[in-house]
Amino acid sequence: MQYIFGVDLGGTTAKTGLFDGNGTVLEKWEIPTRKEKEGENILPDIAASLKSRMAEKNLLAGDIKGIGIGVPAPVIDEAYVESTANLGWGYKNVKKELEEALGIPVRVANDANAAAFGEMWKGAGGGSKNMMMVTLGTGVGGGIIANGRILDGARGAGGEIGHLFVNPGEERSCGCGKKGCLEQYASATGIARLAQEMLEETGEASLLRNTGGNPTAKDVFDAAKEEDALAIKIAEKFGMYLGHALADLSTVLNPETVVIGGGVSKAGPVLLTFIEKHFREHIFRASRDVKLVLAELGNDAGIYGAARLVLE
Amino acid sequence: MQYIFGVDLGGTTAKTGLFDGNGTVLEKWEIPTRKEKEGENILPDIAASLKSRMAEKNLLAGDIKGIGIGVPAPVIDEAYVESTANLGWGYKNVKKELEEALGIPVRVANDANAAAFGEMWKGAGGGSKNMMMVTLGTGVGGGIIANGRILDGARGAGGEIGHLFVNPGEERSCGCGKKGCLEQYASATGIARLAQEMLEETGEASLLRNTGGNPTAKDVFDAAKEEDALAIKIAEKFGMYLGHALADLSTVLNPETVVIGGGVSKAGPVLLTFIEKHFREHIFRASRDVKLVLAELGNDAGIYGAARLVLE
Repeated sequence: MQYIFGVDLGGTTAKTGLFDGNGTVLEKWEIPTRKEKEGENILPDIAASLKSRMAEKNLLAGDIKGIGIGVPAPVIDEAYVESTANLGWGYKNVKKELEEALGIPVRVANDANAAAFGEMWKGAGGGSKNMMMVTLGTGVGGGIIANGRILDGARGAGGEIGHLFVNPGEERSCGCGKKGCLEQYASATGIARLAQEMLEETGEASLLRNTGGNPTAKDVFDAAKEEDALAIKIAEKFGMYLGHALADLSTVLNPETVVIGGGVSKAGPVLLTFIEKHFREHIFRASRDVKLVLAELGNDAGIYGAARLVLE
Repeated sequence: MQYIFGVDLGGTTAKTGLFDGNGTVLEKWEIPTRKEKEGENILPDIAASLKSRMAEKNLLAGDIKGIGIGVPAPVIDEAYVESTANLGWGYKNVKKELEEALGIPVRVANDANAAAFGEMWKGAGGGSKNMMMVTLGTGVGGGIIANGRILDGARGAGGEIGHLFVNPGEERSCGCGKKGCLEQYASATGIARLAQEMLEETGEASLLRNTGGNPTAKDVFDAAKEEDALAIKIAEKFGMYLGHALADLSTVLNPETVVIGGGVSKAGPVLLTFIEKHFREHIFRASRDVKLVLAELGNDAGIYGAARLVLE
């Protein structure tokens, strides 16, 4: 039997999984991401970690079918990145460097796209060849699976759902320089800002006033579950922007499933109720069968998707 | 050498091309689409037309690599449609019927998707593996090519660009039942309506007043070329809605090229100037290299794309 390594490289750690050929994870571990010196140690550290795990289990290069890795940047030609501020990298040919260090075939993808691929394979996507995932964390990311493959796009930037233009009335700038991006309303940060603004605008009583004026996204959905009227208004606004955006994408992409993941999705099924109404209202009838579901793999989606790259 | 047939089946005629294996069209012809009796003659008529052409040129089934056909409905599993009001059809397995009639492999796609595939192959897409086409005609259609393949979606409805939600303020309903769809502003019909409304709202002098109050989309762009101020305002509005929508899709799909086709695109390069400004303003920086171009194959895009299906 051949094994697969799936690596999810982030700014703090590189999570790794050893999988069997069926996609069952046998072991998981993390190593720190050393970003100093323009991140020059990152790939050698990963290679060393994989080598030592192989030695420990008496695995030779021929026992490993391949290594998949997700990195936090657009990935071009399934091989290299042009720059990854998060990691200190400029141009870096991830595929070539790791293949030279290990003598094992390597596949590379963007981390959010890999997470979507993971959910497609072993999570909420249920094997759908056409699905879309949106990740609601500090920012809003996403990934699109079309015809059973990651939609990378021409320059590796496919799936950048967070920068859809959803509010012509916005005056504040998004981190990307545009104004009115989905990320400004549907990320954890964006929801917290919506909440803070709403608390300042009204004198309305609310459980959120117990947070010292700085409610988090979690506070908002916790209060919404308690039927706090102001929290519900905030959640409605979030749901409107996200629901419209996902409806538009579903109209054009006609996925079988839309998966909502990321830290914000830990709020649970209540989250879907706020999105669903606006989603159904704006979706084109030919795509009305699409299912809206919560992610299932949590932080492991990335290693699953990375491993799945090897099976393409 | 093997040949290919590409068929573009529409509500009035079925256009057909005979191609060599390199995609050069050797002959083109049309037969009428007989919609009566729930369209029961349509596929037999096409089969008869192909057979007679083969007999005329002494071609046997083995000389034909395959037949591609574009049909005006969502196509499921590259084979069948669930219903096509345009043609009188209910459920129809196009692939199976034509293969049984001709003994030659058949590939089926949605017509707008096939047109996009044609432009990708031999037209303005220049071979881009990631491109998007929007067709501005009576309605607004489109097609997405991702990883070199048509993005059909789960139920064959991929590429329905015309039903993106672009205007929350709209009170009139789109033909699809929603309000504020792109098609209401970017189709020939939509542009004509924008023009009529604008003429009624102002007393402003305009070349468009010479059209008896019923300017067409062509009139609008002709007047805009003459620097008619009111026509330019109408074209700006069209460009804003379409530019934003294409920017959003490009942000998520990261295509190499966006192709504008359909009857409205005959206005020529002036059309792009109205779209380009809004397109560039709203596109995410990672997709800023995308090219916006006019279609090149005109009404032949469909037969080219249908033929290309056979080479997949």
